[in-house]
Amino acid sequence: MKLSYGRMFSDKLDGQHGLARAQLNDLIQRFPAVIAEVDTRRQRGEYGFYGLGDQGDVVRGIKKFADGVGQAYDHVLVLGIGGSALGMKTLLSALRPPAWNELSDEAREYFPRITILENVDPTSIAGALSRIDPRRVFVNVISKSGGTAETAAQYLVVRAWLDQALGPDAAVRHLAFTTDPAKGPLRELAAREGIAALDVPPEVGGRFSVLTPVGLLPAALIGIDIERLIQGARKALDEAQRPDLLNNPAGLYSALLWAADAWLGARIHVLMPYSDRLRDFAAWFVQLWAESLGKRSDRRGQPIFAGPTPVPAVGATDQHTQVQLFMEGPFDKVVTFVRVEEVDEIKIPTRPGLPDDFAYLPGHTIGELLNAEQEATSAALARMGRMNATISLPRLDAGSVGELIMFMQLATGFAGVWYGVNPFDQPGVELGKRLTFAAMGRPGYSREGSVTLDQSLPSDLAGA
Amino acid sequence: MKLSYGRMFSDKLDGQHGLARAQLNDLIQRFPAVIAEVDTRRQRGEYGFYGLGDQGDVVRGIKKFADGVGQAYDHVLVLGIGGSALGMKTLLSALRPPAWNELSDEAREYFPRITILENVDPTSIAGALSRIDPRRVFVNVISKSGGTAETAAQYLVVRAWLDQALGPDAAVRHLAFTTDPAKGPLRELAAREGIAALDVPPEVGGRFSVLTPVGLLPAALIGIDIERLIQGARKALDEAQRPDLLNNPAGLYSALLWAADAWLGARIHVLMPYSDRLRDFAAWFVQLWAESLGKRSDRRGQPIFAGPTPVPAVGATDQHTQVQLFMEGPFDKVVTFVRVEEVDEIKIPTRPGLPDDFAYLPGHTIGELLNAEQEATSAALARMGRMNATISLPRLDAGSVGELIMFMQLATGFAGVWYGVNPFDQPGVELGKRLTFAAMGRPGYSREGSVTLDQSLPSDLAGA
Repeated sequence: MKLSYGRMFSDKLDGQHGLARAQLNDLIQRFPAVIAEVDTRRQRGEYGFYGLGDQGDVVRGIKKFADGVGQAYDHVLVLGIGGSALGMKTLLSALRPPAWNELSDEAREYFPRITILENVDPTSIAGALSRIDPRRVFVNVISKSGGTAETAAQYLVVRAWLDQALGPDAAVRHLAFTTDPAKGPLRELAAREGIAALDVPPEVGGRFSVLTPVGLLPAALIGIDIERLIQGARKALDEAQRPDLLNNPAGLYSALLWAADAWLGARIHVLMPYSDRLRDFAAWFVQLWAESLGKRSDRRGQPIFAGPTPVPAVGATDQHTQVQLFMEGPFDKVVTFVRVEEVDEIKIPTRPGLPDDFAYLPGHTIGELLNAEQEATSAALARMGRMNATISLPRLDAGSVGELIMFMQLATGFAGVWYGVNPFDQPGVELGKRLTFAAMGRPGYSREGSVTLDQSLPSDLAGA
Repeated sequence: MKLSYGRMFSDKLDGQHGLARAQLNDLIQRFPAVIAEVDTRRQRGEYGFYGLGDQGDVVRGIKKFADGVGQAYDHVLVLGIGGSALGMKTLLSALRPPAWNELSDEAREYFPRITILENVDPTSIAGALSRIDPRRVFVNVISKSGGTAETAAQYLVVRAWLDQALGPDAAVRHLAFTTDPAKGPLRELAAREGIAALDVPPEVGGRFSVLTPVGLLPAALIGIDIERLIQGARKALDEAQRPDLLNNPAGLYSALLWAADAWLGARIHVLMPYSDRLRDFAAWFVQLWAESLGKRSDRRGQPIFAGPTPVPAVGATDQHTQVQLFMEGPFDKVVTFVRVEEVDEIKIPTRPGLPDDFAYLPGHTIGELLNAEQEATSAALARMGRMNATISLPRLDAGSVGELIMFMQLATGFAGVWYGVNPFDQPGVELGKRLTFAAMGRPGYSREGSVTLDQSLPSDLAGA
């Protein structure tokens, strides 16, 4: 994995926009203090995800568990939301062939199909239950706290469906919970009913949990090499120890995005992989960056209302949707590309009567066109004075994806220090939860006051 | 469809943030001039999409064509990018059951499966061609200009695959082009080879084209009621004629988003439907809003570097990812919710030994929980001083989706006037295209200079 970042700097852009080289020196000088703060906080028990590079026992345990399960079931149903779903979606689309569920058993090498329900949408849930055979499904319910409302509701519906088809005792064998090792309703239910349960390490938050059993179990079930995922993560972790900013890719990336925001007002951070397989990775990054850095208060409790807004994109597709805005709109963005260098074999063929307009295409491969478009878009943005950086992966495999995931988690952890916020909490979602409980009639929440729907009609406002 | 917008105003938020009622009066007074400018420009041939409410002949022609094709093929393969793909993805996910391609023939009522290739990603293309039987596929190649590089490359690969399996003459019967009625390479090829071709109206731009044959043909092929789509669009068009802003929902919506940006600096416009079925609608909106309004120059050619940044989200899922940022981050956003009122039947069941934490759930339906979360999130944002609006649909069907799509197109057209930009061009993507041609060795583009990959390594910058 390589980070190219020349086009963050004014002298490689239009000379007017972008960071100055002197600002890089400033960042280099500040970085030892950033890494020291991370170290101090790690000793206090924060930054638990730094421990995920060394999980030999966990990986062996999951592989054993998955091997046992794998032969008995042909569909994996994951119930989870947010950090309990996005990571697995990322692994599925990056590391398995596209449209996995549409493939034949042979093409899937007899690994099961997978459905990830990440919402309380009745159409999605009814659709999944009508498609899937309950006799051949393995259901993995994932909630770190064990009390997530949406996941609980999904579980109650799915459990009744399993019980009806199999009887309650047999249903238990189709279930595994992934949750806190000691606390919460799912852990309690698992113990009482004898349901298999895997641990989410208490020191790792949901959005940092894809490389724990949260992502590793479903990944192993569909044949992803979780050992190499963790190896890749370890590589990123090793590099992130270096106090020399220029040799610490995650540190450097966090520094450049923060500086672009804090010093130049570029508070929109676009992640644009040139690969359909990394579309879900961009969505996973959106959660990581938004929820970690979007904070009302800084570490000392002072109001700051900070946080960059991450925006997902996919190249070349979004050259035809969002790039117009990135090229010509406000100078409020940094675009990070991800490109995959791997050579493909799909030659664009010629044919008789080829229109002149198409004559430059034959002889190239599809992947050459894709990567040429990435280069051209990066260069064009630079000419228009738009900051951009490029992450290059030699190929897309379990090792590089594990490295990429951990790289972004490390960058987020460093960014918490640059921004001066706690990247591991999410206090802003509590109010919405309490108001939902009030609307659903949960005892103890009526004091929140009645939650009313905004029903303002023109007549309400006509006298304005 | 109903637009609720009280929570755009300070007195329904925290009293500090949001628009003032007096500002609404200002917008009301300005609106007749906005609508007059649209009328003038319509007479000059701009705003061609206003004609899409009256397409009886087109709809009849497509239905007849689709009926003929429908019996012979069991897979539709769409080749297109940007506006030639996103609209159809929106219709598919909104109006067909989830995971359409995973359903049995009976569950699909014998309508074909569909694959939309919207990128030059070798993995996606190879995957599609390995999954699909060329003898049973109908390929719809969509490019308004007929010369889109990505679509041309896809076509050449897919055409060789068809020719190899079927022979060139038979392959022709598996193809239809949707392109300009008179110009461009695809039109030329269609005429020469006898390939069926449908017209994209020249006066309708790609991102406004889902309700032309671009979206209507594939939609009809998979059994979507395209007549009701157009009926819904007509309803939105009728309402958009009214010069009274409070009775013109698309006008009002455009005015409020523009005012929030221009007057309060809320330049990030989040679209957050509470429905998995509208996830692709949010992506479609992102193109429409970004590419139409993100412009370097105003209508008089003066530099403005304007344009709001649209951000897609899905509720309830993204309460667990992005809502932390929306609640606590900078006051630079407006969130628009879309909710579906339709009642669902999926009761959340109770069971023996239900944990206390889950006791409030049984008795409610899944849809009640979803909509309670939408209400709660809207109310919580309001308490935090965050502007938001809600579009309510009675149900999700072809009529309401047609209305919603046209509503957003109309709002975009009005927003062009508020922002003072041409919403129908995309001059900022030309440079990237030229640099791609240069990188691909297309004759005539070498003057662009060599396009180099940003390869800056730490050593380049160490002396900074």
